Amino acid sequence: MNRCIFCDIINRESPAEIIYEDEFSIAFMDINPVTPGHLLIVPKKHFRVFTDMDEVSAGELFSAALKVSRAVRRSELKPEGLNLFLAEESAGMQEIFHCHLHIIPRYSGDGFGLKIKYSDETKNQLKINAEKIRKIL
Amino acid sequence: MNRCIFCDIINRESPAEIIYEDEFSIAFMDINPVTPGHLLIVPKKHFRVFTDMDEVSAGELFSAALKVSRAVRRSELKPEGLNLFLAEESAGMQEIFHCHLHIIPRYSGDGFGLKIKYSDETKNQLKINAEKIRKIL
Repeated sequence: MNRCIFCDIINRESPAEIIYEDEFSIAFMDINPVTPGHLLIVPKKHFRVFTDMDEVSAGELFSAALKVSRAVRRSELKPEGLNLFLAEESAGMQEIFHCHLHIIPRYSGDGFGLKIKYSDETKNQLKINAEKIRKIL
Repeated sequence: MNRCIFCDIINRESPAEIIYEDEFSIAFMDINPVTPGHLLIVPKKHFRVFTDMDEVSAGELFSAALKVSRAVRRSELKPEGLNLFLAEESAGMQEIFHCHLHIIPRYSGDGFGLKIKYSDETKNQLKINAEKIRKIL
């Protein structure tokens, strides 16, 4: 059986700079921060990817993310903004397969950003793509 | 008074490709998609930024995001993964000041990604930065 580094942190079998914990969620510093104060908020139950989560755990995770994000914004770090980021599957840049949400404090000139390749074709397909999603809901 | 484009969509005063709606949240296609199927999920109540939200609305938004994300993954679009992204304040790349969460389906070679400038100093400050956030919680 493979061990999960986030389950080990939750079970106190691996060290981490934990900053918040409740019944459903735990938040700790990312060991490869992209900006000062970058942290991860994680459901305590092991879900491989976000879309494996149940609705209650997802709701609780985001409520906790809100609390932690407010603390980050009010902290001495004094970020001017923040980003939330979640990666699902390797094609979505997920590296650790225990669902996690990044909270990334933002500062002018911090070098963090998005790489985007817009396509006119994608824009023209808006109605068609919407219908493909509506069909499933 | 400034009008809010997302409030106009919610009130059916501006057109949008709406794909999901419940008591708290609404989801519609992003008119500048970064990949096929890119959509936004938005609280119906007007919050300027994420950290202005209340916990109930935040929890409901993320539960709805889970439902919609599952539909996206199961749809004919057949994405291989997805990203969630939220921007707070201009320093965090927010452009429309009604809190919104991006759901971005991902496909190999779609050109979407992150720009990151890691710094050793940030890494070395982990404990200090953790303490600055813990203090507020």
